[in-house]
Amino acid sequence: MANDNLTAVLYGIEDMRLEQRPIPSIKDNEVLLEMDCVGICGSDVHYLVDGRIGPFVVEQPMIIGHEASGVVSKLGKNVKNLKVGDRVAIEPGVACRECRFCKEGRYNLCPDMIFCATPPCHGNLTKFYAHAADFCFKLPDHVSMEEGALLEPLSVGVHACRRGNVGIGSEVLILGAGPIGLVTLLTAKAMGASKVVITDLLPQRLAVAKELGADFTYLVEKNVPEVENVRKIHEMLGSEPDKAIDCSGAQATARLALLATKSGGCVVIVGLGSPEVTLPLVNACTREVDIRGVFRYCNDYSAALELVATGRVPGLKKLVTHHFDITETAKAFETSRYALGNAIKVMIHCQKRDKNNSAKF
Amino acid sequence: MANDNLTAVLYGIEDMRLEQRPIPSIKDNEVLLEMDCVGICGSDVHYLVDGRIGPFVVEQPMIIGHEASGVVSKLGKNVKNLKVGDRVAIEPGVACRECRFCKEGRYNLCPDMIFCATPPCHGNLTKFYAHAADFCFKLPDHVSMEEGALLEPLSVGVHACRRGNVGIGSEVLILGAGPIGLVTLLTAKAMGASKVVITDLLPQRLAVAKELGADFTYLVEKNVPEVENVRKIHEMLGSEPDKAIDCSGAQATARLALLATKSGGCVVIVGLGSPEVTLPLVNACTREVDIRGVFRYCNDYSAALELVATGRVPGLKKLVTHHFDITETAKAFETSRYALGNAIKVMIHCQKRDKNNSAKF
Amino acid sequence: MANDNLTAVLYGIEDMRLEQRPIPSIKDNEVLLEMDCVGICGSDVHYLVDGRIGPFVVEQPMIIGHEASGVVSKLGKNVKNLKVGDRVAIEPGVACRECRFCKEGRYNLCPDMIFCATPPCHGNLTKFYAHAADFCFKLPDHVSMEEGALLEPLSVGVHACRRGNVGIGSEVLILGAGPIGLVTLLTAKAMGASKVVITDLLPQRLAVAKELGADFTYLVEKNVPEVENVRKIHEMLGSEPDKAIDCSGAQATARLALLATKSGGCVVIVGLGSPEVTLPLVNACTREVDIRGVFRYCNDYSAALELVATGRVPGLKKLVTHHFDITETAKAFETSRYALGNAIKVMIHCQKRDKNNSAKF
Amino acid sequence: MANDNLTAVLYGIEDMRLEQRPIPSIKDNEVLLEMDCVGICGSDVHYLVDGRIGPFVVEQPMIIGHEASGVVSKLGKNVKNLKVGDRVAIEPGVACRECRFCKEGRYNLCPDMIFCATPPCHGNLTKFYAHAADFCFKLPDHVSMEEGALLEPLSVGVHACRRGNVGIGSEVLILGAGPIGLVTLLTAKAMGASKVVITDLLPQRLAVAKELGADFTYLVEKNVPEVENVRKIHEMLGSEPDKAIDCSGAQATARLALLATKSGGCVVIVGLGSPEVTLPLVNACTREVDIRGVFRYCNDYSAALELVATGRVPGLKKLVTHHFDITETAKAFETSRYALGNAIKVMIHCQKRDKNNSAKF
Repeated sequence: MANDNLTAVLYGIEDMRLEQRPIPSIKDNEVLLEMDCVGICGSDVHYLVDGRIGPFVVEQPMIIGHEASGVVSKLGKNVKNLKVGDRVAIEPGVACRECRFCKEGRYNLCPDMIFCATPPCHGNLTKFYAHAADFCFKLPDHVSMEEGALLEPLSVGVHACRRGNVGIGSEVLILGAGPIGLVTLLTAKAMGASKVVITDLLPQRLAVAKELGADFTYLVEKNVPEVENVRKIHEMLGSEPDKAIDCSGAQATARLALLATKSGGCVVIVGLGSPEVTLPLVNACTREVDIRGVFRYCNDYSAALELVATGRVPGLKKLVTHHFDITETAKAFETSRYALGNAIKVMIHCQKRDKNNSAKF
Repeated sequence: MANDNLTAVLYGIEDMRLEQRPIPSIKDNEVLLEMDCVGICGSDVHYLVDGRIGPFVVEQPMIIGHEASGVVSKLGKNVKNLKVGDRVAIEPGVACRECRFCKEGRYNLCPDMIFCATPPCHGNLTKFYAHAADFCFKLPDHVSMEEGALLEPLSVGVHACRRGNVGIGSEVLILGAGPIGLVTLLTAKAMGASKVVITDLLPQRLAVAKELGADFTYLVEKNVPEVENVRKIHEMLGSEPDKAIDCSGAQATARLALLATKSGGCVVIVGLGSPEVTLPLVNACTREVDIRGVFRYCNDYSAALELVATGRVPGLKKLVTHHFDITETAKAFETSRYALGNAIKVMIHCQKRDKNNSAKF
Repeated sequence: MANDNLTAVLYGIEDMRLEQRPIPSIKDNEVLLEMDCVGICGSDVHYLVDGRIGPFVVEQPMIIGHEASGVVSKLGKNVKNLKVGDRVAIEPGVACRECRFCKEGRYNLCPDMIFCATPPCHGNLTKFYAHAADFCFKLPDHVSMEEGALLEPLSVGVHACRRGNVGIGSEVLILGAGPIGLVTLLTAKAMGASKVVITDLLPQRLAVAKELGADFTYLVEKNVPEVENVRKIHEMLGSEPDKAIDCSGAQATARLALLATKSGGCVVIVGLGSPEVTLPLVNACTREVDIRGVFRYCNDYSAALELVATGRVPGLKKLVTHHFDITETAKAFETSRYALGNAIKVMIHCQKRDKNNSAKF
Repeated sequence: MANDNLTAVLYGIEDMRLEQRPIPSIKDNEVLLEMDCVGICGSDVHYLVDGRIGPFVVEQPMIIGHEASGVVSKLGKNVKNLKVGDRVAIEPGVACRECRFCKEGRYNLCPDMIFCATPPCHGNLTKFYAHAADFCFKLPDHVSMEEGALLEPLSVGVHACRRGNVGIGSEVLILGAGPIGLVTLLTAKAMGASKVVITDLLPQRLAVAKELGADFTYLVEKNVPEVENVRKIHEMLGSEPDKAIDCSGAQATARLALLATKSGGCVVIVGLGSPEVTLPLVNACTREVDIRGVFRYCNDYSAALELVATGRVPGLKKLVTHHFDITETAKAFETSRYALGNAIKVMIHCQKRDKNNSAKF
């Protein structure tokens, strides 16, 4: 058993393999984790399908997976914040700690970041995994391992809403009701936003958003002029949103975000689409609508954990629509890739389900 | 009836009189309001008892009251944001609109502010009252006139929490569980604070705080050394609060706030006590704990209204423990002054109760 | 003389006329100004040539001019901050003072702004002009009337640098060395920027920038790939700029700004060009490079005045390359329009030159 | 020579010894430095005289010194930012890089900070010293080793002015014209402050401040009521300062800072005096004057270096009034301690003077 380190390794396009790997050794500031839950992210599917995302290319076999939780099984000798048996969520990127970005509190921009399952760095869809202890977040007993894994996408929502200064009184337009749009919705509401309107091309995704607390949903239809979309969204809200968060990444949604946002407000771009987009920049800039990007998250994991632990994002669990054992990784990826059974978030279990949960998830 | 303008006028110390006053005329940017609810604030009681607060002295008879709501009965000719019949909350201070504070978005610091019931300016515990239309906030149908009046203290809580950058992940220590401490508690929770601990000298006030959502309550006892209080609060929270909001104004609470707050955090001073206080300034400053004052509120009314309208501060109504008709003003003040019947917020009605409410309050 | 109110009125495209107009009456919060200097701005020329800028169309005869200074000749009865004889710079936009933008300190976004020479509002290239007293800034004796008029473009530079948080240690890339690029350069240096590199297509404009204090100038040549421009600018600076301020408005400069800016930095868009631009948004957003627009200025005039009064922008005067009497308005516009004699800023004098200056300009 | 590692070690109160110590070995991320200049700070003198500062007690022999520059003589194997022969300024505190303060960009608050000459950590008044490479800042050729050492106090000034958001248009009151007051003055001016008034009890210190660029100096005299001091300072400035930076640490100066600062402004506390001070807190808080502490500096060294390298703080050199060889350490401390010969900053040289300078200092 202690020698079982079944691991999902991406060898190249459409070539994922399950294989035994040696259990990793740990450095002084690391812990060895017995992995529990690993969610599948759109980027994981991307690497499987395309072998690359922008400049990041899978050139060597790479362990996949980065939305994860596990249980501490061994401590590096300098580790003080954790003990064996602690259940933790894993923040998957470990920064260099020495560059100006790291020192200035923006470690997500660190050029030497080691980030799980971003080539050439390995991920953690495996039985045993070593990680820097200070990037592990101890879960309270009542928070499940699945929720621990979900902190990863939730942290993106937290970072997006923080970048946009969402708060009480905010009226927020979210573009895109996929997993990131939904965690952004949950976060915006938890931060006290007055009203959230969310858009998508697919009615079933809007139905989920409604269930998770969206005040309004707006189905974007083909061939509707964008000024008409803007008008209808304003009519729905009874006002202009002061924040827009684009979780889609299409040119059309970025445009809609800029045009619909109130003067002096801000647009946050989370989703990434075509490298080049044509935008009504003069419209936004003469109204001092700011545009801010989001790259992953930075110092957001603990707030995301607090949201879960204090019950402020009760809808989060509902994102998990499917469960698979690590031995079923291929099927799990297929389910996520084609949204089989209206899959939203697919969870892979490296342990028997609920082994480490105080109650059934 | 149209000539009835019964008004509560403070002539001096312990000299409040009910008398008929002429119905005021309005300027082009003003509305005439038929007043509905007026809450009693500690400052109102102060003027009755002491005839002054700091440099503000009641030298001429002054209409009392500033926590108020009413119904628009007449429009100045330039008014566009309201119409006759609108139910509104009244932000009681009207700034000069021309000084640097006003132009820079900090109108609460305007030296030429006209503020209800701050000498020499009249308040609005009266049947008919004229006010700048842009400082009136239209209430949605489902928000009661009482809640409209409560926006005034709630806005103080909003301003305090905003000054302290309370948000998700915040751990907040509130000192003092009087009306301002309670609205601050409600606001902090609505902004997503993870945990709020509130302190007071009186167990019954802490019981109310608990009911309104405090995660922890801490009874401050005489003769306990302050380091011991700090230790116990940290133990209760399981950590150090990163925000402390002093709603009491005693030297002891300001000290506790400074000592208990996490390095890099911030202390907000809302309550006002002795002009001179002895503080452990080196302790706070070497840990870069900021100290920020609160003076009333500024651009906070609409967010406060959103909190109420979206159901984010359900405990707010519970603050109102007593109701009186304007003809019972003396009794209302007595109830508030001596906290008779454990009074928290005493509401005076210038109209028949619920006349302007869609449902019974 | 007191009846001479010679005024430059734009009747339509290519139709500017000098004519006598009645001396305006003033409101209680206004002053009557005997105008002294009025600079010509690119927008003035635009209205002359095109009759419009975006949605603003000259439909009625409109007095031109908005970069101006004058001398107080009469006080409205509520005016306290000025006295007759005061020499003042005129901030040309007067906001409504009542909307949320005004109250929140962003009055430049006020939808009811009255702004000189923006249709349908009159400008101030005239002998006598009435203006709100609180938007007039008294000049110290040693500041010339020309400098007073130059506070208008300088305030744009101040607003741009403030929007970009330029400060000590900043490395700033300025795109475009026209008048706005130059005032931005002057401001950035006055704020303590370490290094400023400025780009343009015209060598003679770069020569002026060099003289005004640019650390580096970069001549943009046709047919150079943008990555090459980025590389050369980085090489020149020895690093990546953390701020880029686009004072040109071309798609090419906005793109260069986004691509050249350091991760976590920010791009400010001042110049306005084509309504639609194609941008490398993913590049900027994944590096969390913010994009912020600038619309005129807001609470910047007094800082601009301080820059001049304390000698921190000694190059400012050099922007004025040509002087004309108001009777020569047509020639002044021609000089500005065609940059005759390498004109940068053309100044029109409504009074005899230096009449109100303590020393010759 | 390679074995000469003469070192100044503080054994206890009034017990400083010069002795040979082994040349330290270096870790993978460290460099070995041949030390050049080490300035004496008030805290160094404090440890000599009192054996402690607050909770920091000299219990074991401790190498003194922390305002230092040196030359790289050996590289740890992971060091990439430096090479042998680089002349560097040394930021004397190395943080843990793992706690929340470090990750959030406030590493100066790190509880596990290793800071030179703060017990129990050794300083760098020695011939050879090992330090983390990323806390060393390469000096351009034209910056002297003395200036490199002066970056330490200058960084305090930078941090103080940044904490106070000093910028163009700021009117700054600095309390105390000792070395920290003077570097704060230099920084405030470099950041574009309009006017700086500086106070002290000693006319000779004010004379230096005047020479370094103070717009106004104010001699605080005994027995003058504080309201009178406030009045005179306002009169001098012609306005109320919007920033006050207390570099003295006396109760009297903290009080003056609070009372003199404009509403909405901020007071920065740099100097540390009595642990308990009595303050007019209500006055400050009702005017929303913020109080912010300064603990050393954080991400300020590179901006401080830019200030020096770009010639923005020409007065900095003048702070160095005395020079001693490391063999004269006792005399150097005596000079600093008693301000002999009006000493401001005393510099100790571990190498022959100007050995590593391109020009004589």
